[in-house]
Amino acid sequence: MRIVIKNGTVVTTEGVFSADVVIDGETITAVGANIAKDYEKTAQETVNAAGMYVLPGAIDPHTHIAMPFMGTSAQDDYKTGTIAAACGGVTCLVDFELQQKGESILGGIERKISWAEGKAAVDYSLHPAIMDPRPEIIDEVKKAIRDYGTPSFKVFFVYDFRVDDAVLIKLLAETKEHGGLVQLHAENPYIIQHMNEVLAKQGKLEPYYHAKSRPNIAEAEAVHRAITMTELTDSRIYIVHLSSMEGLAEIQTARDRGIAVYSETCPQYLLLNEDRYKEPDWNGAKYVMSPPLRTKESSDALWKGLRFGDVQVVSTDHCPFDFKGRKDMFGKEDYKKIPNGAPGVETLLMLLHSEGVVKGRISLRKMVDVLSTGTARMFGLTKKGSVTPGKDADLVVFNPNQKFVITQKKLHQNVDYTPYEGMEVTGMPSKVYSRGLKVAEWKNDHMEFTGETGRGRFVKRAPFEGF
Amino acid sequence: MRIVIKNGTVVTTEGVFSADVVIDGETITAVGANIAKDYEKTAQETVNAAGMYVLPGAIDPHTHIAMPFMGTSAQDDYKTGTIAAACGGVTCLVDFELQQKGESILGGIERKISWAEGKAAVDYSLHPAIMDPRPEIIDEVKKAIRDYGTPSFKVFFVYDFRVDDAVLIKLLAETKEHGGLVQLHAENPYIIQHMNEVLAKQGKLEPYYHAKSRPNIAEAEAVHRAITMTELTDSRIYIVHLSSMEGLAEIQTARDRGIAVYSETCPQYLLLNEDRYKEPDWNGAKYVMSPPLRTKESSDALWKGLRFGDVQVVSTDHCPFDFKGRKDMFGKEDYKKIPNGAPGVETLLMLLHSEGVVKGRISLRKMVDVLSTGTARMFGLTKKGSVTPGKDADLVVFNPNQKFVITQKKLHQNVDYTPYEGMEVTGMPSKVYSRGLKVAEWKNDHMEFTGETGRGRFVKRAPFEGF
Amino acid sequence: MRIVIKNGTVVTTEGVFSADVVIDGETITAVGANIAKDYEKTAQETVNAAGMYVLPGAIDPHTHIAMPFMGTSAQDDYKTGTIAAACGGVTCLVDFELQQKGESILGGIERKISWAEGKAAVDYSLHPAIMDPRPEIIDEVKKAIRDYGTPSFKVFFVYDFRVDDAVLIKLLAETKEHGGLVQLHAENPYIIQHMNEVLAKQGKLEPYYHAKSRPNIAEAEAVHRAITMTELTDSRIYIVHLSSMEGLAEIQTARDRGIAVYSETCPQYLLLNEDRYKEPDWNGAKYVMSPPLRTKESSDALWKGLRFGDVQVVSTDHCPFDFKGRKDMFGKEDYKKIPNGAPGVETLLMLLHSEGVVKGRISLRKMVDVLSTGTARMFGLTKKGSVTPGKDADLVVFNPNQKFVITQKKLHQNVDYTPYEGMEVTGMPSKVYSRGLKVAEWKNDHMEFTGETGRGRFVKRAPFEGF
Amino acid sequence: MRIVIKNGTVVTTEGVFSADVVIDGETITAVGANIAKDYEKTAQETVNAAGMYVLPGAIDPHTHIAMPFMGTSAQDDYKTGTIAAACGGVTCLVDFELQQKGESILGGIERKISWAEGKAAVDYSLHPAIMDPRPEIIDEVKKAIRDYGTPSFKVFFVYDFRVDDAVLIKLLAETKEHGGLVQLHAENPYIIQHMNEVLAKQGKLEPYYHAKSRPNIAEAEAVHRAITMTELTDSRIYIVHLSSMEGLAEIQTARDRGIAVYSETCPQYLLLNEDRYKEPDWNGAKYVMSPPLRTKESSDALWKGLRFGDVQVVSTDHCPFDFKGRKDMFGKEDYKKIPNGAPGVETLLMLLHSEGVVKGRISLRKMVDVLSTGTARMFGLTKKGSVTPGKDADLVVFNPNQKFVITQKKLHQNVDYTPYEGMEVTGMPSKVYSRGLKVAEWKNDHMEFTGETGRGRFVKRAPFEGF
Repeated sequence: MRIVIKNGTVVTTEGVFSADVVIDGETITAVGANIAKDYEKTAQETVNAAGMYVLPGAIDPHTHIAMPFMGTSAQDDYKTGTIAAACGGVTCLVDFELQQKGESILGGIERKISWAEGKAAVDYSLHPAIMDPRPEIIDEVKKAIRDYGTPSFKVFFVYDFRVDDAVLIKLLAETKEHGGLVQLHAENPYIIQHMNEVLAKQGKLEPYYHAKSRPNIAEAEAVHRAITMTELTDSRIYIVHLSSMEGLAEIQTARDRGIAVYSETCPQYLLLNEDRYKEPDWNGAKYVMSPPLRTKESSDALWKGLRFGDVQVVSTDHCPFDFKGRKDMFGKEDYKKIPNGAPGVETLLMLLHSEGVVKGRISLRKMVDVLSTGTARMFGLTKKGSVTPGKDADLVVFNPNQKFVITQKKLHQNVDYTPYEGMEVTGMPSKVYSRGLKVAEWKNDHMEFTGETGRGRFVKRAPFEGF
Repeated sequence: MRIVIKNGTVVTTEGVFSADVVIDGETITAVGANIAKDYEKTAQETVNAAGMYVLPGAIDPHTHIAMPFMGTSAQDDYKTGTIAAACGGVTCLVDFELQQKGESILGGIERKISWAEGKAAVDYSLHPAIMDPRPEIIDEVKKAIRDYGTPSFKVFFVYDFRVDDAVLIKLLAETKEHGGLVQLHAENPYIIQHMNEVLAKQGKLEPYYHAKSRPNIAEAEAVHRAITMTELTDSRIYIVHLSSMEGLAEIQTARDRGIAVYSETCPQYLLLNEDRYKEPDWNGAKYVMSPPLRTKESSDALWKGLRFGDVQVVSTDHCPFDFKGRKDMFGKEDYKKIPNGAPGVETLLMLLHSEGVVKGRISLRKMVDVLSTGTARMFGLTKKGSVTPGKDADLVVFNPNQKFVITQKKLHQNVDYTPYEGMEVTGMPSKVYSRGLKVAEWKNDHMEFTGETGRGRFVKRAPFEGF
Repeated sequence: MRIVIKNGTVVTTEGVFSADVVIDGETITAVGANIAKDYEKTAQETVNAAGMYVLPGAIDPHTHIAMPFMGTSAQDDYKTGTIAAACGGVTCLVDFELQQKGESILGGIERKISWAEGKAAVDYSLHPAIMDPRPEIIDEVKKAIRDYGTPSFKVFFVYDFRVDDAVLIKLLAETKEHGGLVQLHAENPYIIQHMNEVLAKQGKLEPYYHAKSRPNIAEAEAVHRAITMTELTDSRIYIVHLSSMEGLAEIQTARDRGIAVYSETCPQYLLLNEDRYKEPDWNGAKYVMSPPLRTKESSDALWKGLRFGDVQVVSTDHCPFDFKGRKDMFGKEDYKKIPNGAPGVETLLMLLHSEGVVKGRISLRKMVDVLSTGTARMFGLTKKGSVTPGKDADLVVFNPNQKFVITQKKLHQNVDYTPYEGMEVTGMPSKVYSRGLKVAEWKNDHMEFTGETGRGRFVKRAPFEGF
Repeated sequence: MRIVIKNGTVVTTEGVFSADVVIDGETITAVGANIAKDYEKTAQETVNAAGMYVLPGAIDPHTHIAMPFMGTSAQDDYKTGTIAAACGGVTCLVDFELQQKGESILGGIERKISWAEGKAAVDYSLHPAIMDPRPEIIDEVKKAIRDYGTPSFKVFFVYDFRVDDAVLIKLLAETKEHGGLVQLHAENPYIIQHMNEVLAKQGKLEPYYHAKSRPNIAEAEAVHRAITMTELTDSRIYIVHLSSMEGLAEIQTARDRGIAVYSETCPQYLLLNEDRYKEPDWNGAKYVMSPPLRTKESSDALWKGLRFGDVQVVSTDHCPFDFKGRKDMFGKEDYKKIPNGAPGVETLLMLLHSEGVVKGRISLRKMVDVLSTGTARMFGLTKKGSVTPGKDADLVVFNPNQKFVITQKKLHQNVDYTPYEGMEVTGMPSKVYSRGLKVAEWKNDHMEFTGETGRGRFVKRAPFEGF
């Protein structure tokens, strides 16, 4: 089947230009100025994209679909999660697979693929998160990269399942040898433990103190230490959900010295600040996530980091829990008992466009880079992330002028709130394609899912090529 | 006329992929996987690029064609200079127009265009260099940007025609308002004057002391000061021919703070070091240029700067003087009398590929970025710099395996030496296209010019869009 | 004549200890635990200092006695100025001698000594300020150091009489060779000129815009440039009246690299902030000085700088103009017409003790260091600055508990206001000695001058020894 | 008993001046210009110190007397160790008391005092080293400070008995509250473990690889982490035996930000470099200590650190093991089996004077600061460290011109080698006094012990007062 998208404005990281795009089956086959005329006759469908951007679908490389955590589970499963993604213009997820105690990471990958079977509406891949780093697990890294196509491995410096420097060093050395990339949740656990004790003594247990319990230096210290280990092994590292200006400063200094440190941030760290935790009626619990929201100074710094290339990726850390029933399931007395996480996969693209591009903080090219092209390169998604012949036809025909007031009622995420409730955005997807199939479409005042659950495929990724 | 380049490996900053490229007249019209079959029938020529890269032509944004300097003139005129460019895969120059005392910069632009008339073999544009900054000249900035399409303006912190901070500030404010970009030759003149006096007293006048007379901190100080003025005016600046690790460090620190500082370096600073000045038989004079060659530490830092994006462009500062007859025309007794400059436009691409890509210092994508795509974006060459539909068909079909021993005998630059004599490179252009016309081609053991002088056009450039 | 000061608490930079001090004639001859008994019999006077500190007299190395400036003159002459000093516990001034156009600096020194003749109540020395840097003036540096005992030389980066980098370099080299020290007023004149133009265009001419016209980066740039020249010549430099955190940061970075940069700040930069310029009734004019008052962030940083040793000296930049009659003599319409300067010599010690020591920002030892011992060392006042045998008996018996509400009515400075009007301090001199003579004393509710004008002597200073 | 030391040149951190010093019993009672005449008659002894310096005795705050370590023990006991100290001009030690598993630190203090009983020839104090940080041990901190006079507490980030960040945080908070100071051995154990494995795989086990197994970044990372914890708790910290430029840089940056980080280095890091490990005949083992010797760049940086005040103390880490019999007791096959440590207490002062002062790296005042005055202030030795009335008469009459070729044969340390064998120094003690008793004296060509073992006393120290 051939589709021709004509008269649109194609956006790549190189530039913004008028071109027609030809899709044959699941693949982009040609991009050309006024080539629609050469292909329309043989096309099953022609889309007139006049006034629209033709963007590569966004990729969200940080989701927690159905993740068991803090005594409960993140609520979206592969069905609801990927429908929400599709409706937001996200055509690929790289989801976390959390290794269970005693489990092999390879087994974990297979287990999580089985959870997705028959459910996913868009393509997905997995990052194994190493939570039980027995020696034989380190040996699985090579196999995971070569046979399973999962070259990125997450570890945590916090939580019960944290790793110490020794494991990080081994993993950095092993991934370097075989073409992998370590992803790190960078916070210092002892600082948090200390602050938890100090705050408990002072009786400070409201949601706001979640932020105080994890100060910026807890992130900066962990980032600095990880950089030292990266330098030691001459490897590379990727810091997930970077939140603080101090953490960013460590990354900048390291990159200036030539150390290969990469990072992602999330819309919540770019757009929301710690005053949110003080919202009345325990509303602050909605924003309880780790790392916590910071001050505006950090948000401003992170936008700069994106602009100047020290932060390469924007992800969501999508991990929704209902405000009523889940966030409060262990009581409202202590911030430490609130399940950490918030929804975000569906609002990623609209927020980056409206708050980033429309407000002049980043260019349109940069948006495509941090949501699609750069993300694909970072994680070896060789068929994704660009409106280029040969790539998968994962595309968003995007209407830059469409207004939308974000409200949970019109979203598809399986959760009872959105942190962005009531915020008006400018620019929404008009049509979203996943490998040539239109999976979502703007209808009157909201996005409608038009795809098929179960069509989304697990994507094997290529080894890390260097960024 | 239609040309189809098929089976090649297209390189963009986004990726490296198999695609056919269709040229109609002077323009790239389509890029597609296996689309040759759809266009070959209607093509006048089909080029089989199997095993070849299809690159955007390189852009050299720093040449001194026929520049009067230090009592003599740079030797290449627009004919010899652009033939050399074409043979090296450089399909566009942005040459400097040096305003003369009392002259208007607009008049200067017209004068230099008249020098090029009937001579240029590839397209070119001009940067006005402001050397007599009378108040009314600042007022010409707007007109130069809007009417003449020359949005970049060079000033010098050294030489008799240097500007002071006051002029720089005015120019930064003015260019910001109208979409221009200031380019700065950043060295501190008083440091050089002091070192000249110190060295003269010590009788140290051999070519080697040219390097000692312009220490790294002379560049770093000037860069730092320029950054302050950029911060003051919330404008942006571009440092030409960055040479030292200390200068780069200032740029990195400023960019980390969110100040819009851009820079270029040149192959000589990446590949040659100050020990060259000690070559016997006064050979060091060949490398007398400003800023001078530095130590390997600076070269290593500059490669890092390219890799991590703190340096965005590689240019040549092409400014050739014959070793015999010109370099020595004022005597061999004093480094200060040696005309400053060296040839480079023809060897730019081959050196970056062989020393950069083949040796693993930068990726192929990064090479295309710093030689073409990034350069075009920096300087508003909206029709140049990328293998994308709608762009001018300025292309290089590049054979990555072709060996070549660089020797002046086989080059086209109008000068009696090359700094790279005897160096073997891997990878040479096979065919070079300028707006659809094949202007150079590999024949047996060298490049042959196949274009037409006089066909090259002056290109109006767009205002600075942000990088 | 012998005086014994017994039972006091002697303060040196090494420590705080109980000791008796013996003065013979003009000199401290012995310091000992319980030695009063050995000397009292032969003493003409015994002072019981129980409950008091015995401090070295403060040294103010930055005053402008009777300085012609901006069309008027600083109001204190050597009589009123040194009486005020004595009453504030300042027993030595190093005043600026401003070379006039065409004058030799040696002639200038002699001229200013003649102004002091018969007037000075405490000892003083002079820093020649080089304002007409003809080549022969540089040659006078050696003579000034060796024959006149004035080894410190001030230059300005601002004002009509400013020097360029070339003069600074020469002076740095020359002072290094002969044991001198360059003092720099570090602001960038072009930034100020630019801001003056911008503010004039916007009609912003109230006193507050004096601060805006001289932004922090104007100081930081000048400091950075001076550091480069210091590194170039392997010399040392001293930044006068450091005011901004950005300027301090440049100094810290340089010192971390081993470059000999020293600095002083003043009580106004430690204690007053730019909101003062907004006081009603044009009151802000009282604080118009250069550099201007900054924000609290800078004040906090400067206290840190003192604590950690990156700032070595506190001076006053004493330069008083009456609020009524002088500050407004050229009109109130434009901040640029307000004579720059404020009084301070009399309040130096009380402010540092009360706001510094009592409030825990610096230790008592550190106060003595930055007001006396360090100042003496910096400027070669080998007989001053410490309660040590062999030093001049310039001493303050200080009552740490005496309260005083600062008011111009009770001060001796020849000016109609003090910037600290109404501020209560804790701790005041009880008795002040200049070379063994009691020159001031606390009486009821104020200080009373008890010395002799004309007794103060010009002090030849030793070459810079390294700090 | 009264002793008068006359005609000498007294050195304090404030200055160098001619004065006579009066000692009554164990205490300095008076310092004065020409006061000998007032006291000689009543003196039992008059020492003519013409041409000599009168220095405060050096304090070595880092010794390991009789320390059990790595299966053996440091060889000097309190008798031999303090005789060596006295002969080197060291009149006070602060020795480490290493808490044993299960022991209380208070018990440890008492145990080690009992080891010293009847043996010490000079005064000493103890730092408890916390090696078994049970919760109740943290509670002992207050008692150790208030009742035992030991306000400094050492912890290690390496070795089996290392502490984690949690213990460090607790200790920083506790010491801040009660007037203590944490001392840290700062190396990252995981980096060392990794390098040990890498080197073992490569068969690199000679002494030189001891240095490679503990790279500079292992120190820098640990210092950085400790700084973070200090910032978290708003406490202060003291880094022992700082060895690397990277570690120093972390300290400088922290101090520039106002964080109270202090440090000591040792003569071996200032004077010896890692090429020593390559000496033939396994001689490199003599220098096996942790941290290891570094390159000259680090030594140069550490001298700068002393000069600019970022390093406040020079200690020795005195911990001798015989080259024959101890260093090799577990074989010569593996650097990991060599007992770590080297002698140094006796050569401290002579090296600092000869290599520091005579070679112009530090001033005489600075030497006194880092060996005596600053050390006493850092560790609360309120009666030590300065030639000031009221202090203990711990003095060195020092002959700045006396040459001495260092050789183990003429030293008193109980070990068969010195790392400085054959080095000639300029300047040696002439007479050494401990609380008024002459404990050592230069005789012909070496120092002779003239004191009494058992006279040395345990000194209770005051809480940390701020530096």
